Amino acid sequence: MSLCEQHLAETYGFSYVEDGGVTAAQGFSAAGVHAGFRADPNRLDLALVAADEPAAAAAVFTTNVFCAAPVQVSRAHLAATAGDGVKGDGPAYGTARAVVINSGNANAATGPVGLERAERMAAITADEVGCTADEVLVASTGVIGVHLPLGPFEAGVPVAKAKMVADRAGGHGAACAIMTTDTIPKECAVTFEGDDIGYPGCTFTVGGMAKGSGMIMPSMATMIAVLTTDAPLVAADAAGCLKRVVDRTFNKITVDSDTSTNDTCFLLASGDAARGEGRRPFEHDSEALDRFERALLQVCTTLARAMARDGEGATRLVTVTVRGAATAEDADRAARTVANSPLVKTAVFGHDANWGRIAAALGRSGARFRQEDVSISIMGLPVCERGLTCPFDEEEALRRFEAPEIPILVDLGAGNEQTTLWTCDLTHDYVTINGDYRT
Amino acid sequence: MSLCEQHLAETYGFSYVEDGGVTAAQGFSAAGVHAGFRADPNRLDLALVAADEPAAAAAVFTTNVFCAAPVQVSRAHLAATAGDGVKGDGPAYGTARAVVINSGNANAATGPVGLERAERMAAITADEVGCTADEVLVASTGVIGVHLPLGPFEAGVPVAKAKMVADRAGGHGAACAIMTTDTIPKECAVTFEGDDIGYPGCTFTVGGMAKGSGMIMPSMATMIAVLTTDAPLVAADAAGCLKRVVDRTFNKITVDSDTSTNDTCFLLASGDAARGEGRRPFEHDSEALDRFERALLQVCTTLARAMARDGEGATRLVTVTVRGAATAEDADRAARTVANSPLVKTAVFGHDANWGRIAAALGRSGARFRQEDVSISIMGLPVCERGLTCPFDEEEALRRFEAPEIPILVDLGAGNEQTTLWTCDLTHDYVTINGDYRT
Repeated sequence: MSLCEQHLAETYGFSYVEDGGVTAAQGFSAAGVHAGFRADPNRLDLALVAADEPAAAAAVFTTNVFCAAPVQVSRAHLAATAGDGVKGDGPAYGTARAVVINSGNANAATGPVGLERAERMAAITADEVGCTADEVLVASTGVIGVHLPLGPFEAGVPVAKAKMVADRAGGHGAACAIMTTDTIPKECAVTFEGDDIGYPGCTFTVGGMAKGSGMIMPSMATMIAVLTTDAPLVAADAAGCLKRVVDRTFNKITVDSDTSTNDTCFLLASGDAARGEGRRPFEHDSEALDRFERALLQVCTTLARAMARDGEGATRLVTVTVRGAATAEDADRAARTVANSPLVKTAVFGHDANWGRIAAALGRSGARFRQEDVSISIMGLPVCERGLTCPFDEEEALRRFEAPEIPILVDLGAGNEQTTLWTCDLTHDYVTINGDYRT
Repeated sequence: MSLCEQHLAETYGFSYVEDGGVTAAQGFSAAGVHAGFRADPNRLDLALVAADEPAAAAAVFTTNVFCAAPVQVSRAHLAATAGDGVKGDGPAYGTARAVVINSGNANAATGPVGLERAERMAAITADEVGCTADEVLVASTGVIGVHLPLGPFEAGVPVAKAKMVADRAGGHGAACAIMTTDTIPKECAVTFEGDDIGYPGCTFTVGGMAKGSGMIMPSMATMIAVLTTDAPLVAADAAGCLKRVVDRTFNKITVDSDTSTNDTCFLLASGDAARGEGRRPFEHDSEALDRFERALLQVCTTLARAMARDGEGATRLVTVTVRGAATAEDADRAARTVANSPLVKTAVFGHDANWGRIAAALGRSGARFRQEDVSISIMGLPVCERGLTCPFDEEEALRRFEAPEIPILVDLGAGNEQTTLWTCDLTHDYVTINGDYRT
């Protein structure tokens, strides 16, 4: 947990659950198994997350035109289970009993066959879990343009179900099963008390797992996250919270500017922590819902930062904060251009406080500002004040580059908006991972 | 000369001038010298291009907010010498007698001192060439945020002038003097006949030199091009032609998506090839002006492709053609997103016909299309037909990757617009060049 995460937690009174993940919240169980999508028998490649009862569910999906079959199927399932399901590209919501995810095959660019197989993947899972296929959400990650085999689901889902019954708290296995080029599983959970929000004696948990911006050849990056909570939520409110939080967390990370065809983030809410209150849902616009959203923000911030830190080939987490922007869009545009600049990213790799590259990225970002108003600091060292270079201690800069996290702070001097993006450096290993697989 | 350039030349009846460059057109001389901006005495670092008489001049400059002092000064000089000089960010035009360029220092982010020194750079040159300072255009490339020393100009410009008098055809030296991390100088020239455009017996030449998207630590990429012609042009028409041609050539290359603070492209027209016609200018909207613009397009295409091919660390020139787009903007957006994708670029480096990455880039580009309408071929091999994978011979693909140029062709199936962008692969050497300078 970084200082930033600790600060958030302290501000809002959240406690991190030790080794918490997707099964930390009451009412959920999970498992990860090797089902056969990958050749290596030691590698988990199928994750199953199940809710004991139908859970309020919300999701946000990739905006890529080449959106994968599982994205289309999950969207349709939420629409089918929602009384007033949202259409189009907005956050979808409805009801779900299970999420099934495979790695090793993205089921993208697979046409009608791909849709059919994603439906079968849901149906096989529904049979095991004991629900309708519509109540199953699906996600896939891995190679694209190759048909998804169904055999591993037929073999693997029953095994996962059995494993889940034997050990409900299989969140860690599930987090491992969705990894591609990730080097560590990503999971966390926080709790908050209900006493002062009308739920006396209730302790609510929000947890989740995510896979990072990894790519395993010849597949493509897919960000997938599953979030669970035992807070009692109306699905539409869950969707609203999820959309806002995703915009501030997963949509604020970038490893290589490539948006995947499969990006998916699910949120399931069981309400089980409020059993004593008859699972009375958090009211719309209430203090309780607000508290929940902050906890969700906390969990997603931790997961998103972990994804950026574990970007392909990365040696450093880079946080790019832009302040003083005229609009929120300008802040995002400026931060995103800096965070995606290969010149900035290779400079971090080279331990080079090369602010000229940051300035050049800002200058082409489209954000409105005057060069004589811009100040930049790297790792706390002012390097540019009001558009002009300022001398800094190069030795000290080199020392500060030893830290695992490199903060870049820009003040555009053009207004009051600000944002933070997370990225990583661009290294030889990135080129190796993405360029060398055939050699 | 590639097949594409040959095809253009044959279509329009242009001849390439052997070893032609910025001094191929009548009325221009040039030289490159070591003036002392760089430590290595064997490295040329100051280029001087002079017109015998005041020449019609046009320029396009970087759109980066952090635009460098020489950009601001050259823009002001053109405005001062133009009867009806264009204001703002459009193509500037006026009259010029000389262009002076240094490498090793970009004179960017240097404030009022930088502007003063860029003016001095022009004044020193004006004294040697025998013109007013306003008639001198300036450009700089190299480290940013460091004040430009004036000593090298005081010492080097007279030497360059003397060298130019001794050998008018010093275009090659000038092309070498503006290089940064470029591995080869970039220059070319073509001719066309005036017989059927109202200039009997006149042979017109268009030539030029450019420096590529190189970066030498801790500096930033600067693209600089100087184009000369002995065609008789009104400055405003020269500016119009230049703007249109730059949009189709230099603005269609990308090495790493980073727009420099110093990008500059100058065009000078002496009219000397039409001395027999009293330098009567090509009329607005005439066949002659049209022919000139095509020749300029030819020269800039050759230079732009050379810049992409020589991108930092590049092993391959990649041409990305998008057809069937609904609008020209969509075509550009789609091609640019593919050409800037680090995943696509590392795949080319890895000799991997990984079309999924191209599809993913298209899908996030913002261009409008349906995935079931998209077809993609790589090096002439169809890899995706109407959104679905098509089997291809992997061995054959590996063989074709041996070629120096990798064509990627996309048909969006959404309209009739098309464009071509040039880029290069993303390699270990790119990371080394931009990340390793301190280690």
